[in-house]
Amino acid sequence: MHILITNDDGIYAPGIKSLINALKQIGRITVAAPDKERSATGHAITMHSPIMAKSIDKYGEEIKAHAVSGTPADCVKLALDMFIKDDWPDIVVSGINNGPNLGTDVIYSGTVSGAIEASMMGVPSIAISMSDHRFISFEDAAAFTSKMVCKVFECSITSSPIFNINYPVCKPGEVKGAKITKLGIRKYRNNFIHREDPRGNRYYWMAGELEDLPQDDNSDIVAINNNYISITPLQFDLTHYKVMESIKGWESTFDLK
Amino acid sequence: MHILITNDDGIYAPGIKSLINALKQIGRITVAAPDKERSATGHAITMHSPIMAKSIDKYGEEIKAHAVSGTPADCVKLALDMFIKDDWPDIVVSGINNGPNLGTDVIYSGTVSGAIEASMMGVPSIAISMSDHRFISFEDAAAFTSKMVCKVFECSITSSPIFNINYPVCKPGEVKGAKITKLGIRKYRNNFIHREDPRGNRYYWMAGELEDLPQDDNSDIVAINNNYISITPLQFDLTHYKVMESIKGWESTFDLK
Repeated sequence: MHILITNDDGIYAPGIKSLINALKQIGRITVAAPDKERSATGHAITMHSPIMAKSIDKYGEEIKAHAVSGTPADCVKLALDMFIKDDWPDIVVSGINNGPNLGTDVIYSGTVSGAIEASMMGVPSIAISMSDHRFISFEDAAAFTSKMVCKVFECSITSSPIFNINYPVCKPGEVKGAKITKLGIRKYRNNFIHREDPRGNRYYWMAGELEDLPQDDNSDIVAINNNYISITPLQFDLTHYKVMESIKGWESTFDLK
Repeated sequence: MHILITNDDGIYAPGIKSLINALKQIGRITVAAPDKERSATGHAITMHSPIMAKSIDKYGEEIKAHAVSGTPADCVKLALDMFIKDDWPDIVVSGINNGPNLGTDVIYSGTVSGAIEASMMGVPSIAISMSDHRFISFEDAAAFTSKMVCKVFECSITSSPIFNINYPVCKPGEVKGAKITKLGIRKYRNNFIHREDPRGNRYYWMAGELEDLPQDDNSDIVAINNNYISITPLQFDLTHYKVMESIKGWESTFDLK
């Protein structure tokens, strides 16, 4: 099995190191990851400036690793189109992210965008994130990811599925199991702190406290809160089909004269 | 009606100017837009550096306009949380983008992310893009957007809908009407050009030619190709519910010991 690994915390982050160490036991590894932290980049891509790429040997001679001056989506695009063009991976794994990627927040996530880009190009993918690695180690999450990779490799569901995995905040022995979930809702209050620079110009820091919202029982947020590992299958068709049907009648009402 | 306007081409772009001029006829306008071009930023947000904001008077005394050193999603968040916290808009309009935002490409779009962010915060929104403004002027597209704003304001479909509008490439008299569409599929080949800098370091430019793929008849891409204005309702729940159901059985198969 050939596995492409990316992340958004950067190629030197501890999370990706644990992931590489675990997955090299079950397959051949290529790494293409940002040369520095690129979190909260959403599905940004780099179209208006060149993207630098450098081979690094941090992960041993047998692993080709590319440090890329772009986003996780850039890394996956570049890898599939250039670095391993004639040797496509069986799966792309993005992470392990230092911090959760839950609910509606996944739309901001660089980690998840790496996985979505893979699926858009036709390769199955997994994004893996941890709420707090002081309780459970990256190694534990990497070991679970390894099992998940084998499962996805063996299964035959739809073309190029995407799985978003989040690890709960508890001690390893307290993890109750894994739940298949939907995305919950995350909202914040007091989103910004307002300040002025020495010349009187205003600026803002994004901050925000998480709101405690009601969540569906089968959501990723509830799973995590109950010490389950959350596995959410994702897709990238943003069409709202229900609204689409309900406004069909609008077509005849626009006067373009 | 209070209308918040944003874009991703920057607050000084011609597209946003036409939009402001058209929409100020039907409502009170606030502008919060990037201080420079921020296209292809996807749903990126600025969490790790401060966001500068400056009031500008380019659009006249009656219009409050904020030039923001962030992404379209930042602009909408900042506006709703800070600039107009006690005077929320009835609708957010993002554009007019210089270039199309069609099919699967909308996931990369800064223009669309401004609209999605509005809906995530509970405000209806419209993203408006033009394939080529040499044929139809920004003014024509702005006039249509104005009608669409009134339509969304009057309708009572779901909470905070998002509409992605694209204008076709043809002369004004050749526009056949408007179609309610789903997102089509966009893929590119020869995505990157490989070069070396004077010191022998490799770098890449994202390029790519659009592939000619089969599309559903009711897709945005087909509508545009047939000289229709395309209106696609969007949503931001990335859960893949079908796969979710089909892998429920996995839950009992993970051995966490």
